[in-house]
Amino acid sequence: MSVRIAIDCMGGDHGLAVTVPAAVSFLSHVPDVRLLLVGREAEVRAALAGFGGADLSRIEVRDAPEVVAMDEPPASALRSKRKSSMRLAIEAVKSGEAQACVSAGNTGALMAISRFVLRMLDGIDRPAIAAPLPNQRGGVTTMLDLGANVDCEPEHYLQFAIMGAALVSVLEGRDRPSVGLLNIGEEAIKGNDSVKQAAELLRASSLNFHGNVEGNDIYEGTTDVVVCDGFVGNVALKTSEGLARMLNGIIREEFSRNLLTKGAALLSMAVLKRLKDRVDHRRYNGASLVGLRGIVIKSHGSADAFAFEFALRRAYDAARNGLLERIAQTLPQLTAEAHAGATGMPPQPSEPPGAVR
Amino acid sequence: MSVRIAIDCMGGDHGLAVTVPAAVSFLSHVPDVRLLLVGREAEVRAALAGFGGADLSRIEVRDAPEVVAMDEPPASALRSKRKSSMRLAIEAVKSGEAQACVSAGNTGALMAISRFVLRMLDGIDRPAIAAPLPNQRGGVTTMLDLGANVDCEPEHYLQFAIMGAALVSVLEGRDRPSVGLLNIGEEAIKGNDSVKQAAELLRASSLNFHGNVEGNDIYEGTTDVVVCDGFVGNVALKTSEGLARMLNGIIREEFSRNLLTKGAALLSMAVLKRLKDRVDHRRYNGASLVGLRGIVIKSHGSADAFAFEFALRRAYDAARNGLLERIAQTLPQLTAEAHAGATGMPPQPSEPPGAVR
Repeated sequence: MSVRIAIDCMGGDHGLAVTVPAAVSFLSHVPDVRLLLVGREAEVRAALAGFGGADLSRIEVRDAPEVVAMDEPPASALRSKRKSSMRLAIEAVKSGEAQACVSAGNTGALMAISRFVLRMLDGIDRPAIAAPLPNQRGGVTTMLDLGANVDCEPEHYLQFAIMGAALVSVLEGRDRPSVGLLNIGEEAIKGNDSVKQAAELLRASSLNFHGNVEGNDIYEGTTDVVVCDGFVGNVALKTSEGLARMLNGIIREEFSRNLLTKGAALLSMAVLKRLKDRVDHRRYNGASLVGLRGIVIKSHGSADAFAFEFALRRAYDAARNGLLERIAQTLPQLTAEAHAGATGMPPQPSEPPGAVR
Repeated sequence: MSVRIAIDCMGGDHGLAVTVPAAVSFLSHVPDVRLLLVGREAEVRAALAGFGGADLSRIEVRDAPEVVAMDEPPASALRSKRKSSMRLAIEAVKSGEAQACVSAGNTGALMAISRFVLRMLDGIDRPAIAAPLPNQRGGVTTMLDLGANVDCEPEHYLQFAIMGAALVSVLEGRDRPSVGLLNIGEEAIKGNDSVKQAAELLRASSLNFHGNVEGNDIYEGTTDVVVCDGFVGNVALKTSEGLARMLNGIIREEFSRNLLTKGAALLSMAVLKRLKDRVDHRRYNGASLVGLRGIVIKSHGSADAFAFEFALRRAYDAARNGLLERIAQTLPQLTAEAHAGATGMPPQPSEPPGAVR
C-alpha cells in the first residue's frame, strides 16, 4: 500500500527552509511514499523550485493561507486558524487523503487541533506524547507521557502502557515489548498513590509488565517502554537535554583549551564524530501523539532538515505498519483484563521488582 | 569555633573501608575539626591502626554494637536498632557532642531516625533531601526535594525554597540565592495545581524567586536553587545518572574501538582526565537532610573514600557557617510574608516567566 503523508510545511522555527528540503530528500529515499505539502502555496512552490530533480509526481501542494504561530495559545489556534497549514494537514488525515501528518509547530496547538479534528480513540481522554530515547544497549527506550497529561489517574498509566507497547511493536518490530512504570527507589515512600494503583492494573493485564523502573533505567534500556505522567516525563526529557548540552560544552571546551588539546582533538576527530552520531538527538526526532484516531507526529520545533526527515520516517513507518489498527485491537482487551484482574484481587502493597534496589 | 562531626562508620556499601580512610584524610586537611567515629569499636580501632600518622588526639571512637543494613525497612531500623552506629551518630548531634553527622547508610532509615531523634524545625513536616549538581556556568545548582516527599502541598515547595536558599547562602556563600520552581513548558497545561499555587506563595515571599524553570535549567544553572517534589526530583537525578553513565560508556567504547582510536585516547589523556574531573559525581557527594533540628549529611551508599570526604566537608561547612541558625532565622519571616502576600491578592493564573519558552 502506498502511504501518503501530510506535512505542515509552515510549522517549526524554520518553516519551509527545513520542511521542504526534508520532504524532497525523503521522497528520494522512499520510493513508494507520496507527500501532501500544506502551506502558503506560492511559498511552498517557490521552495520546491529550488530542487530541480525532485519527483513532483509524488507531491501535491495544498494552499493554507494561515499559519499557527509558535507561541500562539492553543485555544486561539483552534478557534481562529481554521485555514492554517497545521489544521489542513490534520484534516487530510481525517478525510483519509493522508495516513499520517507531521508538524514541527506549536505542540499545544497541535494537540488541541488534532484532538478536535481527529477525536480520541474510545476510552482515551487526551493524547499522550511518546518519543524514543537512545539507550546503552544500542536500541531505544520509548517513553510516554512527555508532557500532555500532568495529573494522571491509574487508568491513564495503563493506557500509556498499551499505546506505548503498540508503538514499539509497530515501529521497532518488537514482539511483546516490556513495559516499566517509572517510580522512585526510596523504600520508605515508594511512589505516590496513583503510581501504586497503576502498578496493580499493569500487573493484572497481559502486557509484558516488568514492574517499577527508576530514572536511570531509561538510558540503561531495562524495558522497551517506560510510562510516567506528563510532568515527570517532561522534566526527565528536558533534564536530559540540559545535561547532554552541558557535557557537550565541556568536551568542546576541554579539547580547545590549548594547542596540545587541539592537536588531540584533531587526532580524535573520527572518535568524536562517531560519538556525536551515536547520541545525535536528531536521529530520535519525531514524537508520536498517541490516542488519536489518526497518526500525528510532532517534530522538534528547532529541527533541521536532517532531523525533520527522521520525523517523516516515523510517520511513514507508523502508517505502513498499521499503528492505529494495533492500538485499536489491543486497547479494549488489555483494558478489560487489567480491570478484571485488579478488582478480582485485594489491593496489595506494590512490591519492589528487580529493577529497584 | 572547633566543629565536631559524628560519622556513622559502618554505613554504606563499603563501611569502615571507606569511612575511616576518609576521616583520617579529612583530619589531615582540616586542622580544627574533631571527629567522633561511631561503630563497632574494635573494628573501628583496627581500621584506624592502619594509619600510623593519624592525629588521634582529634578522634574519639564510640562503640555501637549494631549496624543498620542497607536494605532494612526504616521502621524496623528505628524500633530495633537503638544501639546502631547510625542512631548513636545522630544522637551525638542531638546531645550537642557533635555539630553534624554523616552517614552513607540506608536513606530511609537515616530519615526516619533523624526525624525521631532530632525532631523537625517548627512548621516543617518531613526532612527534604537537597544536593548540589554541577552546572554549565561552572558552579552548582542545589536541588530539592530529591525523594523524601512524594506528594507535596504548595506550602512544601515554599519550605524547600527557604531551606534551599539558606543552604546555598551558607555552603556556597551566595547572597540572596535565586530560586526556580521546576515546571514544564507546555503552554496549554502548565504545571499541576500544587505547583501553580506554590508559584503564588514564592512570588509573594521576599525570596529571590526567578519563576518557573524547566529540566534543562538545572544544568544550565539558571537559578541557584531548584525546587520540586520528591518524585520529580528523584526521577530527574536518576535519569541524569543513567544518561551520564551511558555517555561515559559510549566515550570509552569509541576510544577503545581499534589501535588508531586507542592512540587518540592516549594523546587525549589529559583532556579526558580533566573532563572526568569536571563531572566527577564524587565531588558533589553529600546530600543535606534539611528541615531537622540538626545537621545530617547523607553520602551516596557506594561512595569511595574520596567521595566520602566531600560529604564530610559539606557537614563541616554547614556546621561552621551556621546552617541551622540561618534556616531558623529566615523560615518564620519568609513563611509569614508568603502567606500574607498570597492571600492578600486573588489567585492569579501563573504567568510564564522568562525561563519558559
